[in-house]
Amino acid sequence: MTGRHRVVIVGGGFGGLHAARALRRAPVEVTLVDRRNFHLFQPLLYQVATGGLSPANIAAPLRAILKRQRNARVLLGEAVGLDPQRQALLLADGELTYDTLIVAAGASHHYFGREEWATLAPGLKTVEDATEIRGRVLAAFEQAERAASPSEVRALLTFVIVGAGPTGVELAGALAEIARVTLAKEFRAIDPTAARIVLLEGADRVLPGYHPDLSARAEAALRRLGVEVRTSTLVTDIEPEVVRVQRGDIAEFVPAHTVLWAAGVKASPLGEVIAAATGASLDRQGRVRVNPDLTVPGYPEILVIGDLAHCLGRDSHPLPGVAQVAMQQGAYAARLITSRLAGRTVPPFRYRDWGSMATIGRHAAVADLLGVRFSGFPAWLAWLFVHLMKMVEFSNRVLVLAQWAWNYFTFNRSARLITNTAAARPANPAPLRHASRRAV
Amino acid sequence: MTGRHRVVIVGGGFGGLHAARALRRAPVEVTLVDRRNFHLFQPLLYQVATGGLSPANIAAPLRAILKRQRNARVLLGEAVGLDPQRQALLLADGELTYDTLIVAAGASHHYFGREEWATLAPGLKTVEDATEIRGRVLAAFEQAERAASPSEVRALLTFVIVGAGPTGVELAGALAEIARVTLAKEFRAIDPTAARIVLLEGADRVLPGYHPDLSARAEAALRRLGVEVRTSTLVTDIEPEVVRVQRGDIAEFVPAHTVLWAAGVKASPLGEVIAAATGASLDRQGRVRVNPDLTVPGYPEILVIGDLAHCLGRDSHPLPGVAQVAMQQGAYAARLITSRLAGRTVPPFRYRDWGSMATIGRHAAVADLLGVRFSGFPAWLAWLFVHLMKMVEFSNRVLVLAQWAWNYFTFNRSARLITNTAAARPANPAPLRHASRRAV
Repeated sequence: MTGRHRVVIVGGGFGGLHAARALRRAPVEVTLVDRRNFHLFQPLLYQVATGGLSPANIAAPLRAILKRQRNARVLLGEAVGLDPQRQALLLADGELTYDTLIVAAGASHHYFGREEWATLAPGLKTVEDATEIRGRVLAAFEQAERAASPSEVRALLTFVIVGAGPTGVELAGALAEIARVTLAKEFRAIDPTAARIVLLEGADRVLPGYHPDLSARAEAALRRLGVEVRTSTLVTDIEPEVVRVQRGDIAEFVPAHTVLWAAGVKASPLGEVIAAATGASLDRQGRVRVNPDLTVPGYPEILVIGDLAHCLGRDSHPLPGVAQVAMQQGAYAARLITSRLAGRTVPPFRYRDWGSMATIGRHAAVADLLGVRFSGFPAWLAWLFVHLMKMVEFSNRVLVLAQWAWNYFTFNRSARLITNTAAARPANPAPLRHASRRAV
Repeated sequence: MTGRHRVVIVGGGFGGLHAARALRRAPVEVTLVDRRNFHLFQPLLYQVATGGLSPANIAAPLRAILKRQRNARVLLGEAVGLDPQRQALLLADGELTYDTLIVAAGASHHYFGREEWATLAPGLKTVEDATEIRGRVLAAFEQAERAASPSEVRALLTFVIVGAGPTGVELAGALAEIARVTLAKEFRAIDPTAARIVLLEGADRVLPGYHPDLSARAEAALRRLGVEVRTSTLVTDIEPEVVRVQRGDIAEFVPAHTVLWAAGVKASPLGEVIAAATGASLDRQGRVRVNPDLTVPGYPEILVIGDLAHCLGRDSHPLPGVAQVAMQQGAYAARLITSRLAGRTVPPFRYRDWGSMATIGRHAAVADLLGVRFSGFPAWLAWLFVHLMKMVEFSNRVLVLAQWAWNYFTFNRSARLITNTAAARPANPAPLRHASRRAV
């Protein structure tokens, strides 16, 4: 209609949204396609999974974010195919043609070929994942309150987290706090503070992507919270009520009712679509190997950014799948487009690593900012500040701060609803022996 | 164990919870049984359904509420039967014996024998209902943005609400605001402000349970918001994409994609369980006809309160199913128990009617407090104050106020997530013609 350069962006996560925002003054027409109607602030998803925040606290409607950006529109739709010759993105129910395509479709869980573990050990990528985990964790305490035997109570109060990256560490810390503080006095038959939180990690330290110094501090903080940290430990099988692990030559099992998955990540299936359509190659995690300018080899009008991109850093290792990388790549993609339209060239993408952080419960965190490593309360404050500042929509920022402040001073976790989940109505609940014994 | 008088309460709504709290100093052992782990502040559920609040804002964990009440415990369980001879409440997975039983199991939707309407026109009683409605409403706008023909857009942007009691009126007002203000500038292909909100009512006025003066004021306020109010209009059929109505001799149909049910209410099926076990009689809505002291005839140790009770008021009409009645009956039930234990008698339950209120969007409401009827901003403030004060848990009160204040000053509705709902992924979405036209 206007004849302006059409940019189609797939995915409203950190990468896609930052690309769209960075194009706000560019002479282009932006169409942002997402399956969901909201941007999700994934770094705080573990707070939803542990009842500290509501989903809406960490989500912002994409339309609201882009409301005033007149050169952008939002479409709810699912990208399923690509026709690079016609420059068309195929949706489940239509298609969109583009002059430039930015694919920022992200990643989801990966069970290393053991997809049957998915129902036994849910991962944490979507709002539904988070409410499902929240429901399972809370329902486990509820079932324990009514369980018949001490061994049953023990298994119900054992929570195993597979994977000690930032998500696993944060989940473990939050679960420990729920058990030790939030729920401490709320039950009559069980003692929630006796809950076991077991954090399993295949590498020889927690936060394996971080500096070893931070790993040590994080592990110490987790142990102070009563988390059992088991490194160099591989999960060999997950069955109902039991997790089998191997540490060196020793095979063990942990009786546990609740298992959470924070280990493997696999790129969106759109990676395969792109590979099939363009001949691009994928790495083991399904990420598209891109040129230094984030374009797909042979297709300068197709860019892949964020968790879906295999992009080498200065140390020749692929960049990690974190929000920081995605945001910088989104901004770079926008700059590449505007430069091309102006007939200028841009140097290859270079990642500026501001550092990394992880939080471990109330006022404990580890941080590595521009090489300065610190932990404890200052790190927690830094973590809080950085995450609040990063949140896209102002309304969320204010409310999240309010809710956090409240939780902080009261040790409260009010978003503790068991909703919409299989766990809400246990298929095979423990019999009410505790109660019927009283009936005698 | 202690030999103290055992009070079992079924249901953690307004009635059951108030009974439990009112027994906090009584020499009894209270067991509160609920299928859900939280108390839901139902009067604000329409705010969740329209994206103004998150579920956790209007829900409080039952355990958190009763945490410090040492004579009370909470059990997650489903009551399915009653053995009044053995004084045992049968649960889906066990049983509880009681000395006094208080049944406060509430009510749910009722489609007047047209249960097939349930999927076409969801009602609003649970958190899941609210998120389902929220998803449907938002998805309708999303589909309209991509719809092919003006008639399709028209149907997608038509919202029919069946029933103009407080819930229907509040839903209609909130929907009108979403369309006229919140979403106004967020779409590119459609104009959300053109949405039709149709409120259908079989009686000759909205809010038929209120004073006619308030009905007139509420109708005027709704019309100012652009709601089409159709009274004396009966729904004869609900089909996909069309609602058939009858007004006098005139049969009409309204093409509408989204239909919401705010009409019929039926008491919990526990009413039938009680009737079968005790011989008590039920009214047409399935409520148990109780004695003036809320006990079941012939069974002084069984009380029925709240929406499940058919209890006559001073005008010989049954009391309405509102929070106020349930709370007063809960307090009365507690007083009855403590008096009996002390060998005293209490006079029959008498309902003290403080008045009624309904809100119609931003700073518009109608109120009748102790016979003083007023509307507009003062009524809205009164409504806000009363509802905030009624909220059980302090944390919720503060946060709801914060969220409301924010929404009020910004016209924002940030809890606009399409999650976990059938509507999130339309089975048969409109083809993406708008987009493919651009592709030519």
